[in-house]
Amino acid sequence: MTTRADCAAMDAADTLAPLRPEFALPEGLIYLVGNSLGAMPKAATERARQVVADEWANGLVGSWNTAGWFDLPSRLGDRLAPLIGAGAGEVVVTDTTSVNLFKLLAAALHRQAADPAASARKVIVTERSNFPTDVYIAQGLAEWLGRGYQIRMVDSPDELSAAIDADTAVVTLTHVNYRTGRMLDMEAITAHAHAQGALTVWDLAHSAGAVPVDLRGANADYAVGCTYKYLNGGPGSPAFLWVAPRHQAEFRQPLTGWWAHAAPFAMHPEFKPTAGIRRGLCGTQPIASLAMVECGLDLFARTGIDAVRAKSLALTDLFIRLVEERCASHPLRLETPREHAQRGSQVSVAHPDGYAVMKALIARGVVGDYREPEIMRFGFTPLYTRFVDVWNAVETLRDILDTRSYDVAASRDQVT
Amino acid sequence: MTTRADCAAMDAADTLAPLRPEFALPEGLIYLVGNSLGAMPKAATERARQVVADEWANGLVGSWNTAGWFDLPSRLGDRLAPLIGAGAGEVVVTDTTSVNLFKLLAAALHRQAADPAASARKVIVTERSNFPTDVYIAQGLAEWLGRGYQIRMVDSPDELSAAIDADTAVVTLTHVNYRTGRMLDMEAITAHAHAQGALTVWDLAHSAGAVPVDLRGANADYAVGCTYKYLNGGPGSPAFLWVAPRHQAEFRQPLTGWWAHAAPFAMHPEFKPTAGIRRGLCGTQPIASLAMVECGLDLFARTGIDAVRAKSLALTDLFIRLVEERCASHPLRLETPREHAQRGSQVSVAHPDGYAVMKALIARGVVGDYREPEIMRFGFTPLYTRFVDVWNAVETLRDILDTRSYDVAASRDQVT
Repeated sequence: MTTRADCAAMDAADTLAPLRPEFALPEGLIYLVGNSLGAMPKAATERARQVVADEWANGLVGSWNTAGWFDLPSRLGDRLAPLIGAGAGEVVVTDTTSVNLFKLLAAALHRQAADPAASARKVIVTERSNFPTDVYIAQGLAEWLGRGYQIRMVDSPDELSAAIDADTAVVTLTHVNYRTGRMLDMEAITAHAHAQGALTVWDLAHSAGAVPVDLRGANADYAVGCTYKYLNGGPGSPAFLWVAPRHQAEFRQPLTGWWAHAAPFAMHPEFKPTAGIRRGLCGTQPIASLAMVECGLDLFARTGIDAVRAKSLALTDLFIRLVEERCASHPLRLETPREHAQRGSQVSVAHPDGYAVMKALIARGVVGDYREPEIMRFGFTPLYTRFVDVWNAVETLRDILDTRSYDVAASRDQVT
Repeated sequence: MTTRADCAAMDAADTLAPLRPEFALPEGLIYLVGNSLGAMPKAATERARQVVADEWANGLVGSWNTAGWFDLPSRLGDRLAPLIGAGAGEVVVTDTTSVNLFKLLAAALHRQAADPAASARKVIVTERSNFPTDVYIAQGLAEWLGRGYQIRMVDSPDELSAAIDADTAVVTLTHVNYRTGRMLDMEAITAHAHAQGALTVWDLAHSAGAVPVDLRGANADYAVGCTYKYLNGGPGSPAFLWVAPRHQAEFRQPLTGWWAHAAPFAMHPEFKPTAGIRRGLCGTQPIASLAMVECGLDLFARTGIDAVRAKSLALTDLFIRLVEERCASHPLRLETPREHAQRGSQVSVAHPDGYAVMKALIARGVVGDYREPEIMRFGFTPLYTRFVDVWNAVETLRDILDTRSYDVAASRDQVT
């Protein structure tokens, strides 16, 4: 049996432990929702003050140049790139994940439509259990484009192989499932898609900063992702998008705003796309929110994604083991794969009273979240989560379940 | 002849003077680029600190509910609405002007396509001198939709009447031109468009907070606008969109992200639009940038748009008069209409060496900006611009021109 002392020993040996003090974490709280909104790097307070009280108040409009605001999407993109196996000039941080997915799905469909050998392909393949906005964006795009485009949803990743066929234009999947924490085999699925003549658009919302991603190595085509989860960019911080170098020359997306123009300040009345990844930009970016993304990236620069992954697996292994050892008498069902190769950085556990149990956990300072149906999600951010946090979280869960200290009749305020 | 003492007397009588100390303005600077990036309300520093160091750091993911983050687009929209002649539940603050224009142009075209009497209409009418991103977005939309959609650009607003015809689906115009400061007659153009069977999408980027706008009174259909110019929301703060109540039931836009879903947290795999204006939302918003928009709106709540307009016209009248009285010997050409009904809150003056002259002005602390070709732009934000600022700005301009203290060979770094 694992003991609390074992957990303390793991913390003592943790090479990432020096990064925890860089985060502002409320005293006594065990925060296991870094997969939804990452905790605040302490440096973000000063960065926000600097952007507002220095760059805006004093630099005023000149800060677009002197403070580097206009270049920020590219500069942050270049810093983020190594975390997802991308190179410089391949990523921009901009807009939202939903908007970026719209751009890249459209770009992928456009590329297929321009290829005589692929122009008859009209199907976008995805998972029914994909994060809803990904499905909605694909639905909205297909409906709006018309021309016979349609969505094909599979009920399980096991069905993907058969579902990706000669009619498939694009496959769009989230690499790590938001609900179960299951991670897909990006390289194998991409290879299968390519063999069938389809392109891939990967959503890295639950991967970037959580697991090693190798977009180039997997020969992926397009990707989007989120900066406010494991990258700790701040509430609603702008998302990112990536286009494989081999697709950049032909990269076209419909949101052709002035930031994607070859000469945005020449004010020509005809759109002429810039070269490279800035074609993925559209309009003027929210600088205060964008600038804080750098504070999270600064912390990743002090470690490596392999060290992050090693600790992540140790944390999730420990959580699964402790839940099974200490809560064995309760009707809990592990929704997250045990195989490391199929696991992201969260563990999802179903319980018939999952909503009420999660509410009780939160009331006692163990903050996870809940997703329909029945699923309690626990996210483990290696940069600031300790092994003793895992112990304490499970002990609190065990006590709540053993004493039935939760209210199944409680009203269902949404937990974001 | 107008004297400096006259200007000082106007300041002494200015009912908006108490608002100037609410802004952080660098000592000695005359800031006439509020039409590009508004100055910082002092309250924004504290609001940014609060969002980051309190709501994010301590409230963490719970702040989506407890700090009202999820509702912020609607709450800010309701506060902004009175400035543009809109009602509660008609405006959301979200995304960028470019993205919002894409949504509403698509919505307007969709509405026309669904109407058997209008479905053959394929033309989007705009001005060649519209702000480029507006034209680019229309071009991108038309190209992606295919089906024969095309852009018809007029060279002057005088040509609009003839250009809006039985083929016109949508007319999209910026109410106040970014380059000349010319204001269009929204009510008359909208009436003409409707008489021809067309819908209107107005861009209020240079109007909101600068001139009275009456979207309902003008019987307008759709509108977008910017919060970081005259509304002083901060660099790249999210934009807004408005849909006339009579169009809201049929309102559809292609960027169908989860924030527009009827039950976003139910995680259904089919998109079902929410009721009302939140259909204009898409993905998760950049909260730090969004929250600061309120600081600018708080200041408008202490005055009224009619008082703002009265001072704006007094400032621009004064500027025009002083330039003509004191710089009469120089080849300056007024690009902004003299008629009040056709003037926004900026004055544009062309000079053959406009770029170099503006650079010299900025070096001497009079900050306007430059737009090709030859145009020096001076924006007058009534909330913080004094009549003596106008005097001093013109005196500096006069001295630079009289002594030819500018370098025509200077390199052309872009002035945003």
